[in-house]
Amino acid sequence: MGLAGGSTGGRTDETGGRQGPVAPSGRAPVALRPLALGEAPITGGLWGQRQQINREVTIPLGAEKLEAVGSFENFKAAAARRRGGYHGPVYQDGEVYKWLEALAWEQARGASKQFAGWQREVTGLIRDAQADDGYLNTFIQVEAGDQERYADLAYNHEIFNNGALIQAAVAQARTGNDSGLLAVAERVATHLGATFGPGKRAGVCGHPLVEMALVELGRQTGRSEYVNLAGYFVGARGQRTLNTREFRPMYYSDRLPFREITSPEGHAVRALYLAAGATDLAVESRDSELVDVLRLQWQNMVATKMYLTGGLGSRWEGEAFGDPFELPNDRAYCETCAAVASIQWAWRLLLLTGEARYADLIERTLYNALLPGLSLDGDRFFYVNALELRSGASIEYSRSVAGGRQTWYGTSCCPTNLMRTLSSLEHYFVTRTGDGLQVHQYTPTRIRTTAAGQPVELDVATEYPWDGAVEITVRNASAVPWELALRIPAWATGARVTVNGGEPAEVPTPGEYLRLNRRWETGDVVLLNLPMAARLTRADDRIDAARGRAAIERGPLVYCLEQADHKVDLDLLCIEKGTEMTVTESASPGARIAVEASGQAISRVPDSGLYHPLDGGAPRPGDPVTLRAVPYFTWANRGVDAMRVWIPLS
Amino acid sequence: MGLAGGSTGGRTDETGGRQGPVAPSGRAPVALRPLALGEAPITGGLWGQRQQINREVTIPLGAEKLEAVGSFENFKAAAARRRGGYHGPVYQDGEVYKWLEALAWEQARGASKQFAGWQREVTGLIRDAQADDGYLNTFIQVEAGDQERYADLAYNHEIFNNGALIQAAVAQARTGNDSGLLAVAERVATHLGATFGPGKRAGVCGHPLVEMALVELGRQTGRSEYVNLAGYFVGARGQRTLNTREFRPMYYSDRLPFREITSPEGHAVRALYLAAGATDLAVESRDSELVDVLRLQWQNMVATKMYLTGGLGSRWEGEAFGDPFELPNDRAYCETCAAVASIQWAWRLLLLTGEARYADLIERTLYNALLPGLSLDGDRFFYVNALELRSGASIEYSRSVAGGRQTWYGTSCCPTNLMRTLSSLEHYFVTRTGDGLQVHQYTPTRIRTTAAGQPVELDVATEYPWDGAVEITVRNASAVPWELALRIPAWATGARVTVNGGEPAEVPTPGEYLRLNRRWETGDVVLLNLPMAARLTRADDRIDAARGRAAIERGPLVYCLEQADHKVDLDLLCIEKGTEMTVTESASPGARIAVEASGQAISRVPDSGLYHPLDGGAPRPGDPVTLRAVPYFTWANRGVDAMRVWIPLS
Repeated sequence: MGLAGGSTGGRTDETGGRQGPVAPSGRAPVALRPLALGEAPITGGLWGQRQQINREVTIPLGAEKLEAVGSFENFKAAAARRRGGYHGPVYQDGEVYKWLEALAWEQARGASKQFAGWQREVTGLIRDAQADDGYLNTFIQVEAGDQERYADLAYNHEIFNNGALIQAAVAQARTGNDSGLLAVAERVATHLGATFGPGKRAGVCGHPLVEMALVELGRQTGRSEYVNLAGYFVGARGQRTLNTREFRPMYYSDRLPFREITSPEGHAVRALYLAAGATDLAVESRDSELVDVLRLQWQNMVATKMYLTGGLGSRWEGEAFGDPFELPNDRAYCETCAAVASIQWAWRLLLLTGEARYADLIERTLYNALLPGLSLDGDRFFYVNALELRSGASIEYSRSVAGGRQTWYGTSCCPTNLMRTLSSLEHYFVTRTGDGLQVHQYTPTRIRTTAAGQPVELDVATEYPWDGAVEITVRNASAVPWELALRIPAWATGARVTVNGGEPAEVPTPGEYLRLNRRWETGDVVLLNLPMAARLTRADDRIDAARGRAAIERGPLVYCLEQADHKVDLDLLCIEKGTEMTVTESASPGARIAVEASGQAISRVPDSGLYHPLDGGAPRPGDPVTLRAVPYFTWANRGVDAMRVWIPLS
Repeated sequence: MGLAGGSTGGRTDETGGRQGPVAPSGRAPVALRPLALGEAPITGGLWGQRQQINREVTIPLGAEKLEAVGSFENFKAAAARRRGGYHGPVYQDGEVYKWLEALAWEQARGASKQFAGWQREVTGLIRDAQADDGYLNTFIQVEAGDQERYADLAYNHEIFNNGALIQAAVAQARTGNDSGLLAVAERVATHLGATFGPGKRAGVCGHPLVEMALVELGRQTGRSEYVNLAGYFVGARGQRTLNTREFRPMYYSDRLPFREITSPEGHAVRALYLAAGATDLAVESRDSELVDVLRLQWQNMVATKMYLTGGLGSRWEGEAFGDPFELPNDRAYCETCAAVASIQWAWRLLLLTGEARYADLIERTLYNALLPGLSLDGDRFFYVNALELRSGASIEYSRSVAGGRQTWYGTSCCPTNLMRTLSSLEHYFVTRTGDGLQVHQYTPTRIRTTAAGQPVELDVATEYPWDGAVEITVRNASAVPWELALRIPAWATGARVTVNGGEPAEVPTPGEYLRLNRRWETGDVVLLNLPMAARLTRADDRIDAARGRAAIERGPLVYCLEQADHKVDLDLLCIEKGTEMTVTESASPGARIAVEASGQAISRVPDSGLYHPLDGGAPRPGDPVTLRAVPYFTWANRGVDAMRVWIPLS
């Protein structure tokens, strides 16, 4: 297996621009191409604000917390060849790398002396820490000792850490401000390649991640051996060698060979990182059978194991996917990192296929599974994103959301993953082809790129997701016609599009792209109007926790009830099946739009016990109550109290 | 705090009979008194058969498995003062003691050379293993070293093991065939008392159990210091000193002082053993405030945290109680040991108060939470008792029931707990007072005791729980009137009672005792007829997994659907709300009576995804299907496939 389409030869794509994250090689058989770095910055709106807070609050908080844990000290100790006194869990290096990746993308968004200084300094520490033979993992070097290298592949996260290092290095290289990390990463990858593979050591890491990192490194450097090594690591799984007292092979994505898995299983983040890496591999190795496997896995995931929010993972135990339709609200795991990983996977499938459903899931996941992981102020984090919190729920369990967002975690993967995702977010919103441009996500954006062989300049103005109007203004005349494709979200029945205020264009079935092919003039205005009426959603009846319930959605946002907006205990509230819903301005922080609906307070016979004859003593709807729903991603920003996404139907 | 009512002074109760498990002291303020050993043997029926299989299959299997693990070797190593080579988890000694307790009760039920030999031999090993100062825990003695004594109270289960030892010793003593274990137990208890308590070492065990053991030892020996030590161990909890990386204080019943806990929480078996021990303590110390706490805890448990089966514990993680109303069917924990512990607690509350609801729960738990833990052949065990298994559920998780009952477990608490419970089961069925006799559970029984100051002889004949007729024949004339109290189960609306075929007696509200007070003649026949029509049950709507569903019950048995009885995938079946139900003979193993009901096969739109507009595409009931339900306790005895207790309503 080689870098099938050859490589782009380094830092630029075929248009000459620098690349962002996920850059398929020039001849890779992808339907869509990412824009080059800086070609479509987010210029405002909800995501612009989130990026700003990420830059100003979250990333500096990361520096402070990583320092406090002793993460940098680990590298210094390794550089000094000291032994003992390692800080943090075995994957602590990986947290540094993810934060470093965020620094790189941020500097592409705007110069920062502070970020440049941090990057230079920490990259230096890493370079100094690397062993002479290219090996690099401070836990082994400082604490366990070199004799423990790869001795505990299930637990020690060595190759996982290496993967995160490679990702940060690729980011430094692509953003044109490599502080020397790419050379470190190449030495690490070379060391891995010399260690693992056919005729060498057999084995895979307990935590996938390196697969996509290696393919990206191959794309970046043009060296196919890195892609081959990724191919080895994907292909070698399923031997059930990862099997510990605590977790069985399924947890480690090691129950079956990857190509025999029909639905993601086990630890959610592991399974999703692996799937994303396998997608990169399938693209670069033109492996259509592997593509079929990936599409089947993804389809079964969304058809049986996905929360309404796009959240993934329904078990606290093993942070894992449950069985099909096992999607409890209260015990939902929906790790923030699983949202990141799901976006990474869906983005790769979108580039590969050009199918809108992958962009649909990215949107659902961004607003409702990733964003809830971060406080509005950017300084607190949810690791777990449950869809329901009962009043009186115990705060004592570490996985419970009852304690609210935390300022940091001993395992800080979610905060650092959020940082790097927000720093590179614009790269997931717009693509191009030889025919034109595709806008997948709607947010204020300034697009200056090349499509269909000519410069294309567009400005996107919108208040989305609060308002459904998206105005796209063409800023340059085109020499030849090109196609502007706009995603009509699957929920957007009744979307309308006009060009220059003319007759409405024909809109396809929601969940497809509307395609406008013309010779554009400077000042042309495309107006997309997405229907923003609140809507009630039901779930497959096999999902216990949602049966007999409805959820409120509006646009791409899943809404929820919070106790703060209701005098009656949330446990007593139900919603009228035929309720009208009113969209109102919201005073709740971060939520510009609230939704009001008609409900009732349930009247129960007190102290009557849990179980009754079927025909007796059922609770009765009582006094009418106005339900007030706020976007789920904003919950728990006014203190933490009862919350629910799925509301019992009266 | 002392042995408030004084002690019975040893092995006999005030009637001169030997005592069984749980023997309140003579002056303890209990409403009911247990019968003496051997006064009411079970003579047949379902429980008679289970006792026979326990004796012939399960207990010998225990000997074999405990030997194979190396449990006895541990004692030999400790006796030889060898170091290293310990076998099994830290609580392995405890498994031996529970099995030894079963041996003792079995020998009271009928002499057995084999059991006597095992008991003598293993008791000898234990005696030899005890350290000179009375300390006894082979993990510490053989593996960790004496410097580790009580160094890890949260994890090492030392005092827990000691508690099980004491329970076995009390059983040996009460059954009159002490092989020397009581002396060992007294030395252990004395060592504990010298180590822990006011002015000595502070601390409690991570796993409660010793509390009830110490009170029983106090009752057995008449030594109040053991009861005082139990008082210390109950009172010292709640300091949050048990707090580990893996589990917080709640897990260890150490979040709050016991008297401040209003609902059992954390690890279910820990919480329930503690509550049972605290009840013993409250009885012997005449502590009415503690009694109020216990009643409140129990009431909140059954009102918010109990499965229909009586099963307790709804979280895999921490084997724990969930939040109120958090009772998933698929992820139910319902550890078999939690059923044992719940029966132990309810029995103590029943003796204390004489209230039928505690006997009701014992019945529900015995048939539907304890019995499912054991295969019909007596040689396989469920640790976890889920109320639903989906087709296609992963077998890979150790806590999943998808793998069926196992022949043994690395943590074998459930098998040994089942053994000792079944060996002593008859002691939980009948009580006496100064006024008469109370029959709490209906099974063929031969009662020969003393009540109201005179000999009382009754024979109970019944096919219960398959049939509702219970015939009680009086075998001796009484000198003065006495009261026969019969529990009318809470579900038994329409129960009828006649004496000698006369006019039906007035039957109280179900969930109370029917009381017949008369001067009985030899040959008097009391006929109790409990209504055995199948019935549909609904759950509180706050229980997600049961909302919109019904369960089938008949008599004390919870029924379930098994895939083996249905051609249509269980996931597609629903039950008609107004269905008639037919009781039929069953060919399914262990299930004499099946229940048939009218249902339908749900028709779903294939591949339509999990989430839909509320008013669109809901599944529709399709072809009529006859549902065939079997008793839940018999499930998974015909292979393991989909099963559900709660059936969607059409």
